[in-house]
Amino acid sequence: AQTIRLAVVPGDGIGGEVVAEGLKVLSAVSGPHGLAVETTEYDLGAKRWHATGETLPDSALEELAGHDAILLGAIGDPSVPSGVLERGLLLRLRFSFEHYVNLRPVRLYPGVSTPLAGVGTDDVDILVVREGTEGPYAGAGGVMRKGTPNEIATQDSVNTAMGVERVVRYAFARAANRPRRKLTLVHKDNVLVYAGDLWQRTVRRVAEEYPQVTVDYCHVDAAAMFFVTQPQRFDVIVTDNLFGDIITDLGAAIAGGIGLAASGNLNPSGRFPSMFEPVHGSAPDIAGQGKADPTATILSVALLLDHLGHDKAAAQVERAVAADLAERSAPRTTAQTGEAIAERVAERA
Amino acid sequence: AQTIRLAVVPGDGIGGEVVAEGLKVLSAVSGPHGLAVETTEYDLGAKRWHATGETLPDSALEELAGHDAILLGAIGDPSVPSGVLERGLLLRLRFSFEHYVNLRPVRLYPGVSTPLAGVGTDDVDILVVREGTEGPYAGAGGVMRKGTPNEIATQDSVNTAMGVERVVRYAFARAANRPRRKLTLVHKDNVLVYAGDLWQRTVRRVAEEYPQVTVDYCHVDAAAMFFVTQPQRFDVIVTDNLFGDIITDLGAAIAGGIGLAASGNLNPSGRFPSMFEPVHGSAPDIAGQGKADPTATILSVALLLDHLGHDKAAAQVERAVAADLAERSAPRTTAQTGEAIAERVAERA
Ligand SMILES: CC(C)[C@H](C(=O)O)[C@@H](O)C(=O)O
Ligand SMILES: CC(C)[C@H](C(=O)O)[C@@H](O)C(=O)O
Repeated sequence: AQTIRLAVVPGDGIGGEVVAEGLKVLSAVSGPHGLAVETTEYDLGAKRWHATGETLPDSALEELAGHDAILLGAIGDPSVPSGVLERGLLLRLRFSFEHYVNLRPVRLYPGVSTPLAGVGTDDVDILVVREGTEGPYAGAGGVMRKGTPNEIATQDSVNTAMGVERVVRYAFARAANRPRRKLTLVHKDNVLVYAGDLWQRTVRRVAEEYPQVTVDYCHVDAAAMFFVTQPQRFDVIVTDNLFGDIITDLGAAIAGGIGLAASGNLNPSGRFPSMFEPVHGSAPDIAGQGKADPTATILSVALLLDHLGHDKAAAQVERAVAADLAERSAPRTTAQTGEAIAERVAERA
Repeated sequence: AQTIRLAVVPGDGIGGEVVAEGLKVLSAVSGPHGLAVETTEYDLGAKRWHATGETLPDSALEELAGHDAILLGAIGDPSVPSGVLERGLLLRLRFSFEHYVNLRPVRLYPGVSTPLAGVGTDDVDILVVREGTEGPYAGAGGVMRKGTPNEIATQDSVNTAMGVERVVRYAFARAANRPRRKLTLVHKDNVLVYAGDLWQRTVRRVAEEYPQVTVDYCHVDAAAMFFVTQPQRFDVIVTDNLFGDIITDLGAAIAGGIGLAASGNLNPSGRFPSMFEPVHGSAPDIAGQGKADPTATILSVALLLDHLGHDKAAAQVERAVAADLAERSAPRTTAQTGEAIAERVAERA
């Protein structure tokens, strides 16, 4: 059996609960597909920070680097100042492991209800390719004369030719492999002219290599509108780190809610481990109550399997989730949902 | 009769068509309220730029400054490089006249259909107070090694204590005068830590003067989600220039579409004229066909009247629009909609 060396970072809030179910499903699918999973858990997040002041020690980063992939629950707790864990742990992982593709499918599964009237399953099938390592997330900026009436706080979006090109290339390759073969760049190039121009030029240049892909552009404000009024308009979207953050939460909302939205932080080169996590946060208000929906984490496990080349196992997990979603009715606990999906995986093995 | 000296900038695309209807309604309401309107039209936009290379000459800026208010249609045309007119004309007006409040009501009128299932008229009544003069719109940033594999493009959000405080104060004052008295700051303070911290500190400080206002915070990604899943959650929102741009287009989408979304670019001090414009763009694809909905412009005229202290006239325009929206059925031309609303205004005078 081929062994997947998996690092597990449950994190904060509901993170541990949803990750447990993700692992349950991973374990159910691995045997039948000739896979073995070896997990190492890393205790990172709010508790660790309170105890030691550490967010992500270099030693942990090095150990994580030795794994095939990372499964992450959720990061963030109201007891920790805003930004400390997000930047010191989550973004540090994304940046250190060059997760330049933040892959976020927005798909409405049959049986799942959407807040949009008159929108059906076939109308929502968007693959958002969000840049993951730069843009407004770079952490550049600063503050002068803090706390005075003359304070100035800046926040700088940093966009490099290398950083933009690699994610644009990935997006074109994905678009070329989908039936509709359409790629939309989402930005705000009429205001953010320097960054927007680099994105536009890069898309136009790479487009020459993909004559079969239809290329489109949409301002981020209009894109937010179209997610609600005409989601059919989009196939693959490539966008900047911050715009991607906003439109994928919106995407989760139209595709059945944040409980179903999966993501992969990919380093397509394979030089560093990729990291898979639900789009939702740590939801401290419902933590420890068995209320969280683990589906987003389970779908993230499918992305993980796919990324590691186990596409049949990935498809099986996705089919099990789809079958479960089509028949959900009574409220269930986190564990019940995980077990229901794990059982379907086992049945079909 | 009191005279309103109004500068009119029809602009590009459908701008002229919708502005004509706004003026029709303004004229219908002014007489009965003892108002006279004196308009001066300014020919600015794509045509002017093609002919002379000018976006907004200093002389025009000075003349505009002598008016009581500005009514603007729409700016932007595909024949002009992206950003030229937006930055050289629209943003130059907002910045020069210190339109630090970009006021954008998101209201679902009775009879108007929303793409959201199960959401009724009372569920959507949000007042977005968008900052209008700084943030990522500042135009700061640049490009190095352009066109090379080592290119770096930056885009800097500039936030000043003065700039943030004045819009936050305005938002609190508005929130204190609404039945629900709730103010939500929308930002992304866990990532954009410098700017986010300034916004947070400013809101907390001003909140001390408004103990009757409930203060809330929401990350912009979550806010985008809640616009779709729980719009009831919001009363007044105060937010940065770019986040405000995105969520107000989303707001337009949930409140019946971009054809209905009005805005005021306010200089509350009265030192410079405020400017009123529909949220929609120039829509070159339907320009000149009489297809554009002038309602957003007409509602912007109501905001204009209200801003100039003619609140009864403003309320009358809004009532006429509400009555019209409640009974719309057959498709109408731009002019027919304008006339229908103007007639209702006249009837009730
Ligand atoms: C927690 C936060 C830093 C993160 C982000 O903004 O990327 C989250 O919202 C996400 O989308 O994964
Ligand atoms: C045209 C553009 C510069 C403008 C903006 O981004 O402010 C528009 O989208 C708006 O919302 O008024």
